[in-house]
Amino acid sequence: MPTLLETTLTQIQPLDPQLTAQAQQHLDRLTKPPGSLGRLEELAQRYVAITGMVPPRLERKAVIVFAADHGVAAEGVSAYPQEVTAQMVQNFLHGGAAINALARHADAEVRVVDIGVAAAIPALPGLLIRKVRPGTANMARGPAMSREEAQQCLEVGITMATQCASDGMSLVATGDMGIANTTPSSALVALFTGMPVAQVTGYGTGIDDATRQHKVAVIERALQVNTPRPDDPLGALAAIGGLEIGGIAGLILGCASHRIPVLVDGLIATAGALVAAALQPLVKDYMIAAHASVEVGQQMAWRFLGQTPLLDLHLRLGEGTGAVLAMHLVEAALRIYNDMATFDEAGVSEKQ
Amino acid sequence: MPTLLETTLTQIQPLDPQLTAQAQQHLDRLTKPPGSLGRLEELAQRYVAITGMVPPRLERKAVIVFAADHGVAAEGVSAYPQEVTAQMVQNFLHGGAAINALARHADAEVRVVDIGVAAAIPALPGLLIRKVRPGTANMARGPAMSREEAQQCLEVGITMATQCASDGMSLVATGDMGIANTTPSSALVALFTGMPVAQVTGYGTGIDDATRQHKVAVIERALQVNTPRPDDPLGALAAIGGLEIGGIAGLILGCASHRIPVLVDGLIATAGALVAAALQPLVKDYMIAAHASVEVGQQMAWRFLGQTPLLDLHLRLGEGTGAVLAMHLVEAALRIYNDMATFDEAGVSEKQ
Repeated sequence: MPTLLETTLTQIQPLDPQLTAQAQQHLDRLTKPPGSLGRLEELAQRYVAITGMVPPRLERKAVIVFAADHGVAAEGVSAYPQEVTAQMVQNFLHGGAAINALARHADAEVRVVDIGVAAAIPALPGLLIRKVRPGTANMARGPAMSREEAQQCLEVGITMATQCASDGMSLVATGDMGIANTTPSSALVALFTGMPVAQVTGYGTGIDDATRQHKVAVIERALQVNTPRPDDPLGALAAIGGLEIGGIAGLILGCASHRIPVLVDGLIATAGALVAAALQPLVKDYMIAAHASVEVGQQMAWRFLGQTPLLDLHLRLGEGTGAVLAMHLVEAALRIYNDMATFDEAGVSEKQ
Repeated sequence: MPTLLETTLTQIQPLDPQLTAQAQQHLDRLTKPPGSLGRLEELAQRYVAITGMVPPRLERKAVIVFAADHGVAAEGVSAYPQEVTAQMVQNFLHGGAAINALARHADAEVRVVDIGVAAAIPALPGLLIRKVRPGTANMARGPAMSREEAQQCLEVGITMATQCASDGMSLVATGDMGIANTTPSSALVALFTGMPVAQVTGYGTGIDDATRQHKVAVIERALQVNTPRPDDPLGALAAIGGLEIGGIAGLILGCASHRIPVLVDGLIATAGALVAAALQPLVKDYMIAAHASVEVGQQMAWRFLGQTPLLDLHLRLGEGTGAVLAMHLVEAALRIYNDMATFDEAGVSEKQ
């Protein structure tokens, strides 16, 4: 009996090049020089190819924010205390965080998933409790979680994607919250891209140079202690990952299996994208790199994954903020596809 | 008796650094690491400083599309015939162009100004006829227009800004339409930045390499024939400018005089921004560089003006498309400013 993860991995199909060609043919008939809308045209094409909708319609939108804690916070790698994870989850549920403000602007629903916050969070409307464990163990001293727990995280994410599909979502963004989560994310980026830890590790929420040096050393220790391998992504997620990173990886895989385009946010989300792509390389076609983070490791990861992020606004917040901002661009691309006149309709002369 | 242009130039005031500081203080109290929203925070600050609104409100939005023809089209510098200018104006008025699709998405009004289309355009609802002359003369053989006409263009733009102010617009985007208009725009960029013509001249709507070489030679000839000077911006606009470029420069100056932030679009708009900044350097603080165009000259011009564009989506269409896309970012920045909880309100612990 195959697991939900195994089934999902086999359900992800390559994109149909016919759909891409059909979309480009339509775009070239619209009253503008061919290709002059650049990445908006590319986005419209990808949306058509991913969803199979001709003409493409934008249905409901959601950002799924996975929250979890990290045992490695005990090593003093973050500028904020661990209690902030739970506090911010409550802020999300009360609608006061950046992701709430930006999701309202994008008309996207915010779904908050406690996949592993250390503290018990009071039941509040809108909170989905899917706690795999109350925070990871300290990866600098041993594996962050077991292999079974890593698989559970992925399956929580897949289940969230299935819920999105049955709720009629046609565009999903990844979100995250977890004090210290740039540390496991940078570790995963180093592992999968093969880059030195020092080159993919940044300043997180705003640590100083000495703390960043220490963070690099902690990540190097975690890699030595656990010896994760890039050809064993589930084992790597267990060894040096995070619960929310696993949730995001699962969400991406699940969305791909349902042909829903996924906007991937900052460093933590991109670490999840690396795990997902290592499990099933076809998933790369379903991910849209929303923005280039200030976190250097994120940009390295997108180079490795073969994409250039859409936005570069010097963001370093996470939560899904950059991914939700990019929803406007996807929507703009579909407006172009659906609302413009063709040369024939408008009686405009074509190129000489 | 001072002219409308002279009055407008004296009405433009430096930004108040107190407002910028006040905005940043507010942003730093919100539940996110300080500065972690990067350019969105910068945008919110600028909006507050430009408008003086605390808290900032987004009122109505508009894109003003100035359309005109260019005598230099006779030199064969464009991939499209001149008749397309008038055809596209009708497309704008029927709502079928890219700018219409994107303006609807941004909830911005499209105002189309015939400031110098060669053909007479049938009166259609929404068309503002402010024709200074039916297209410029061929700048490769003499001045594109007279000094008086250049001033009229600027004053048409100023009048459009005043109309926006009295209609309650709080955010304005520049738009343009005019076959061959990358040619005078590149000429103005070369003049004001001091860069060689070949380095600031691109492929416009999609000419081939040979045509681009020819376009460079035509611009060089126009500069030799007319000998415009960067310290005489009105004379430069008359010699090697365009009617819509003058309209855009005037719009930018007028918006600044009314403390309305202006999103500046692609190469043509940025040429207008250079003219405006040469007439009154303080206007630079009121312009927001919306996007980096594929047209190389535009990026050079923004470097000269000291700004980094917000978006880089490989656009090369004009019409105001990139400027209208950037409206979403301004709106997102104001959502952040107005809708987020502070650390105190949300009970979230601050940085250690």
